[in-house]
Amino acid sequence: MLKKKGLLLVVSGPSGAGKGTICKELLNKNHDIKLSVSATTRKPRNGEVDGVNYFFLEKEKFQTMINNGEFLEYAQIYDNFYGTPKAAIIESLENGQDVILEIEMQGAKQIKDVYPEGVFIFVLPPSLEELKNRIVGRGTETEEEIHKRFSCAFEEINKISDYDYFVVNKDVNTSVKELESIILAEKNKVNRYKNNIIAKFKEEL
Amino acid sequence: MLKKKGLLLVVSGPSGAGKGTICKELLNKNHDIKLSVSATTRKPRNGEVDGVNYFFLEKEKFQTMINNGEFLEYAQIYDNFYGTPKAAIIESLENGQDVILEIEMQGAKQIKDVYPEGVFIFVLPPSLEELKNRIVGRGTETEEEIHKRFSCAFEEINKISDYDYFVVNKDVNTSVKELESIILAEKNKVNRYKNNIIAKFKEEL
Repeated sequence: MLKKKGLLLVVSGPSGAGKGTICKELLNKNHDIKLSVSATTRKPRNGEVDGVNYFFLEKEKFQTMINNGEFLEYAQIYDNFYGTPKAAIIESLENGQDVILEIEMQGAKQIKDVYPEGVFIFVLPPSLEELKNRIVGRGTETEEEIHKRFSCAFEEINKISDYDYFVVNKDVNTSVKELESIILAEKNKVNRYKNNIIAKFKEEL
Repeated sequence: MLKKKGLLLVVSGPSGAGKGTICKELLNKNHDIKLSVSATTRKPRNGEVDGVNYFFLEKEKFQTMINNGEFLEYAQIYDNFYGTPKAAIIESLENGQDVILEIEMQGAKQIKDVYPEGVFIFVLPPSLEELKNRIVGRGTETEEEIHKRFSCAFEEINKISDYDYFVVNKDVNTSVKELESIILAEKNKVNRYKNNIIAKFKEEL
């Protein structure tokens, strides 16, 4: 059989597009995909659990990890830091396990610079109107934060060119099906595995 | 909604890898995909129907169509001609319909030159041994033809770099699922549709 390295799936897009929801449902249905848990200095929202949704860190601790080069990426968004611990991800990929990351756009860009073979997926809202409704409906942000996020949304959508795939998140099941197809298609990409394929058949000659 | 042009799916690979079987099953399950029927000067095999499996043409008629530029590609393989009539395919793609082509490797290469935005899929046998068994088992070729085909197979597999995707055809259902995923993933590719996406959101501003 072909030995295949795992895929690093980087899911990003404007806040409120629903990337969290579709990642969660994808993971519910596919237990072989591993979720990378990010670290952040922002405060937990209602129901969020440390080590599950995020590692919630104090700013000092976060800064130490930056200094030690322990992040695959990190970014400051508004007043908080977000970062992706490196070691566990690299190990999983080498072992053939797929890893998924749900991440803000600044972070996605940094990851693309250092790991371009990742699969970069942009989650879009069905419309800007719908995006606004979702952010307001979440009820976790102040009015000022909502305004800030929404005014960034179109500018963010313009950055879609940095991504490999888009998913228009109209309903969760369709979006998850699209993610699953993207993953399976990437596992059938010639560019990723052609050396393994040619080597396998050469052995038989 | 996003208006999307249809995909031209070009399925190729060594003779005996099973590309015909998996295309047939894909079409059985997906009535919205249109099969492009090729023209050929070779004789029908048992059970093959003119206009369904191929348009079976005399050499003179085929030559006239070449001269009139009516083929997307054509090729001579062993002693026979194979070609893909152009007009119907282009019309379907413009109307948003996906078209699938099962084709020899020479033909696939010509199509890539004139229509690089096609999706090029290489069907591999699980092993060279299995490939040989399948060609022999088909019982439609002379011993000389079998030898010719098999000795080309490894050389053909080396040409996999010209393709976007591969499918290792171990069992039909798995292969069809992989094809379906490739199709859906390609419909979510940023490069294909980013202008449509940005235009759609711009309208809302």
